[in-house]
Amino acid sequence: MEVINDLLGYDGIKIIQDSDLFSFSIDSLLLANFATIGKKTNRIVDLCTGNGPIPLYLTLRTKKPIIGVELQTKAYDLAVRSLKLNNIDSQITYVNRNLIGVSDDIGKGCFDLVLVNPPYFKYTKDSNINDSEFKTIARHEVMCNLEDVIKESNTLLNNGGYLAMVHRPERLDEIFLTLKKYHLTPKRLRLIYPKRGSKCNHILIEARKTPNGGSLDILSSLYVHDAKGVWTKEVLRIYNKMKE
Amino acid sequence: MEVINDLLGYDGIKIIQDSDLFSFSIDSLLLANFATIGKKTNRIVDLCTGNGPIPLYLTLRTKKPIIGVELQTKAYDLAVRSLKLNNIDSQITYVNRNLIGVSDDIGKGCFDLVLVNPPYFKYTKDSNINDSEFKTIARHEVMCNLEDVIKESNTLLNNGGYLAMVHRPERLDEIFLTLKKYHLTPKRLRLIYPKRGSKCNHILIEARKTPNGGSLDILSSLYVHDAKGVWTKEVLRIYNKMKE
Repeated sequence: MEVINDLLGYDGIKIIQDSDLFSFSIDSLLLANFATIGKKTNRIVDLCTGNGPIPLYLTLRTKKPIIGVELQTKAYDLAVRSLKLNNIDSQITYVNRNLIGVSDDIGKGCFDLVLVNPPYFKYTKDSNINDSEFKTIARHEVMCNLEDVIKESNTLLNNGGYLAMVHRPERLDEIFLTLKKYHLTPKRLRLIYPKRGSKCNHILIEARKTPNGGSLDILSSLYVHDAKGVWTKEVLRIYNKMKE
Repeated sequence: MEVINDLLGYDGIKIIQDSDLFSFSIDSLLLANFATIGKKTNRIVDLCTGNGPIPLYLTLRTKKPIIGVELQTKAYDLAVRSLKLNNIDSQITYVNRNLIGVSDDIGKGCFDLVLVNPPYFKYTKDSNINDSEFKTIARHEVMCNLEDVIKESNTLLNNGGYLAMVHRPERLDEIFLTLKKYHLTPKRLRLIYPKRGSKCNHILIEARKTPNGGSLDILSSLYVHDAKGVWTKEVLRIYNKMKE
């Protein structure tokens, strides 16, 4: 069923969702808030953009053009319609295709920031894929895997550009190995915990395309819920973000 | 100046220290507390053992034999004398040599757990080494580097054995790459923060020598100080640990 939701915690940007498909989650907003955007961040691309929560959030942080790439046509359609609903279609462009090879269409070595909230899970015979094909493709590495994502990001980025990704902690070692393979240097890591005392369930990582990468900073841990089960002040600040 | 200190927060195990050399820090106790010790943990070695805080702490967790390896004779001497002071010299043996090649002396493929609090900093022309030669060797990779540590650990470990290490966050990607090179699978990662909201300043990582390594768990973050600047309850629990 299709619904129009607020992207954030106030009556502002709207996002069209379809509950039969996949609703965006807080992970995407945390990534959109985490990524480095500076004066030199002129061109941005969001891979696996889904129905577009990340590009929408980024309009609060920058006026620079943003491209969103989404393979699944149903999600792409929702993303495009959300643009019109919000009257912000001049800043964001959506492309309906697989991220593998997307640099052939949108350009090589010319992006300052690539964001991606990719499929988290390896796809094997044993994968839990009882859900719809749509959800399987969104969650599992059916159409692209971690290496595809990092390889294509490297091709898209210019020298000095950043790749910001949200992923699962059990993939962290593989992420470091694959970044190394594609000459991207991990610069910032932030762990997301559902609450204090829990195991980490998501990671935010940013790498830079640069030969002299410098060293990795591990930032303060981010807790989503407090002891009462409500969102922490930090998450609420991200969720209630106003235009800069 | 030489002094006799309590290892922990009560009148129990004593440790001989020399303030002109290097005093053990809480990092070593956190590592000794973090490492996996189970029913199958029969042989243990602690590399870069210094004046021996880790073997001493481990006597609270196991009755199995522990070998400590220390290159610097001054620290080795303190460690040996602490054993006699505590009347526990039947469980711990110290070896005075470089960890590189130590498996030639103490055995290959026969340890169930290797612990190491290695020199944290790369050694370059620009290294801040105004201190004594003793401190330089303890802190900087003069006599052994990260790869030496991991390579030798792999040689020491039997299949299924664990390597537990404390290190600095800026070396995390290099640690993952080097573990991979020596076929060790990272299993548990815990980040240490001086206090909430700070950047991470130390990491605890445990890897396993096994072809089917399974996946990485990132545990809850460990905070050393609370908002008032005193040790947190968790650190006090570790510091006040009694014999199991």
